[in-house]
Amino acid sequence: MTDSIDIKGIHARITQQKPLIHHITNWVTIYDCANITRCFGALPVMAHAREEVAEMAAVAGALVLNIGTLTNELIESMIIAGAAANKKGIPVVLDAVGVGATGMRTQKTLELLDRLEINILKGNYGEIGVLAGANAKVKGVESISLDGQPDEIAGTLARKLGNTVVMTGETDIISDGQTSYSVGNGDEMMGSIVGTGCMASSVIASFAAVEKNQLNASTAALAAYGIAGELAAKNPCGPGTYKERFYDMAYGLRDADLNGMAKIKG
Amino acid sequence: MTDSIDIKGIHARITQQKPLIHHITNWVTIYDCANITRCFGALPVMAHAREEVAEMAAVAGALVLNIGTLTNELIESMIIAGAAANKKGIPVVLDAVGVGATGMRTQKTLELLDRLEINILKGNYGEIGVLAGANAKVKGVESISLDGQPDEIAGTLARKLGNTVVMTGETDIISDGQTSYSVGNGDEMMGSIVGTGCMASSVIASFAAVEKNQLNASTAALAAYGIAGELAAKNPCGPGTYKERFYDMAYGLRDADLNGMAKIKG
Amino acid sequence: MTDSIDIKGIHARITQQKPLIHHITNWVTIYDCANITRCFGALPVMAHAREEVAEMAAVAGALVLNIGTLTNELIESMIIAGAAANKKGIPVVLDAVGVGATGMRTQKTLELLDRLEINILKGNYGEIGVLAGANAKVKGVESISLDGQPDEIAGTLARKLGNTVVMTGETDIISDGQTSYSVGNGDEMMGSIVGTGCMASSVIASFAAVEKNQLNASTAALAAYGIAGELAAKNPCGPGTYKERFYDMAYGLRDADLNGMAKIKG
Repeated sequence: MTDSIDIKGIHARITQQKPLIHHITNWVTIYDCANITRCFGALPVMAHAREEVAEMAAVAGALVLNIGTLTNELIESMIIAGAAANKKGIPVVLDAVGVGATGMRTQKTLELLDRLEINILKGNYGEIGVLAGANAKVKGVESISLDGQPDEIAGTLARKLGNTVVMTGETDIISDGQTSYSVGNGDEMMGSIVGTGCMASSVIASFAAVEKNQLNASTAALAAYGIAGELAAKNPCGPGTYKERFYDMAYGLRDADLNGMAKIKG
Repeated sequence: MTDSIDIKGIHARITQQKPLIHHITNWVTIYDCANITRCFGALPVMAHAREEVAEMAAVAGALVLNIGTLTNELIESMIIAGAAANKKGIPVVLDAVGVGATGMRTQKTLELLDRLEINILKGNYGEIGVLAGANAKVKGVESISLDGQPDEIAGTLARKLGNTVVMTGETDIISDGQTSYSVGNGDEMMGSIVGTGCMASSVIASFAAVEKNQLNASTAALAAYGIAGELAAKNPCGPGTYKERFYDMAYGLRDADLNGMAKIKG
Repeated sequence: MTDSIDIKGIHARITQQKPLIHHITNWVTIYDCANITRCFGALPVMAHAREEVAEMAAVAGALVLNIGTLTNELIESMIIAGAAANKKGIPVVLDAVGVGATGMRTQKTLELLDRLEINILKGNYGEIGVLAGANAKVKGVESISLDGQPDEIAGTLARKLGNTVVMTGETDIISDGQTSYSVGNGDEMMGSIVGTGCMASSVIASFAAVEKNQLNASTAALAAYGIAGELAAKNPCGPGTYKERFYDMAYGLRDADLNGMAKIKG
């Protein structure tokens, strides 16, 4: 099963096709998301005015919605952009940052899931746990605790939503409700810097823009992303220089043995 | 007096307790503030929608308000969040970025000071000078000039406001109106990069979240922060790589002799 | 002709006079713009509230307007700030990011050009092509194609607008409608990181703040900017560490032989 995901092949299609990845995202990691998208070979564009988001989304290869610093106005723009993407069959990735931390985040995430077809729903263990109705705790934007088996939680939620669910953590879980993968790539330094969660969504969207099987696209994306994190950790350093080396290694993945380095279990 | 501030002990409490530091801040250095908070071992969260800020502030260990790119809407959210923090006794740090540069900044800062209990007021020499009614000049967000003795200006303002006042510069001044400290740690490279002022507030808030004596928390925070700046300067470099090394060193402070390296005068 | 542009002399005036560069810009590269401005020796300030932009612009050395993440509210603030700058003869630089990608971007750019005196209009080949009515294509914020000779397109548009037009690309074109320069400095790595386009406008504004001849200021700025890019590329690396080295080298330009290294053709 696992052998059927050609990470290197999908990645090569990104650098060849240079899909436009339209983000409506938060103000903390907006640069990081643009930069990692470009490192992976896609073209990022950030646009959130309600007057232009439908037009931008309609020509994109994928749309990323990230509620990290949500407002009512941003959610409104997300719904307009998401509807335009849905109409054209453009994959939509929702990063439910901090869902569960406030009532607004939970309510707005549910509204996005209700009004749009979210093809890939992504969060950390706590965030997905909250949406799955598991007994999960989120503090700010951090996952604090989760009861139950992550793969079962992801699978159940994916079946309910009819989409692909991605839970990120030390081991990433990806499920479309039928098949689940776990990805063991990555390095603990990734947890010590701001932005790794948000950037993962940009990478997932870049892969989903060129690979229709969203389960495979998400799994390949997280394996490649984690490999960059492993490569960056080869020289010991702190989180500042690690982050820059991470960009270097992400950019250099085009020359890496992605399929051989992937740690995917199906 | 100075010996009574156990910087290392306070810092260790941050990494143990991982307090949530809620920021309502500017769009220029919002990532920097999140990243330095995490480097020091606390959990940053940035949230500014008026519908969620009270809920987020109420579960935080400290609240940072920074007017660097203020709007009326942001100020409104700051007042809502600040009131929620005040009600729960959660420390509130106000970074009065650019006060004095425009009428709006001065008026809104005075409004925040009037409507909220600001536990720690922080600015550069010019900004605090403007608020103290000293003959100070601010150009954009830079301190240009200040008449008078900084420690007297800080002390008088702290007595008037009944809080702790922090003036940052080559030497930092911290006063609660009774006691004043000066901190001599730091490196001139810190003045050549964008974000050092804003990040200092995040570090002060992280210390204030775990140390009730706000004079001591602010003083310890600025000493530790300056020590990271000194350590980062050990390899000569320009402001780009310096910034990343600064994050590395901030992260590495957990292994440093903070009390021995501090240059605090009381 | 070329010999008449004293890049080093203009650059030295920036570090001496430290002009305030007021930006109303996008949320993706707002930090980058502030940081590069400071690296070049000027003082950045970012302020976008309609209530304060006129006051801030009126004391600035130059004003940068960048529509990268435009909204109607930001455009309104740009018009207020631009009018204040025009009244005082303060140079205004417009970076038409993504013009042509959506109807809103094109319409709002034309509105800014109509209602304000834009002293320096800057875009990539595709963006300037769109504004010149050439057969150009923009995808997101990337230039995809342009029919016709860049220098002729820039010159015609500059004559029509009565200002200086800057087209950035592998070779930069600068024209005031009478005289055109091309700048060949730079490195291909600059195209692999997010922010180089936006930062170029900050540098142009910093030069225009101290040099009244806007053709010369823009040309000198792009030469110096490209030289920093060349210096940063001397150690092979990826886009993460390259970006930080780029800041280092920009900061170090005060000691570089700028006039000797410039590749300007007139």
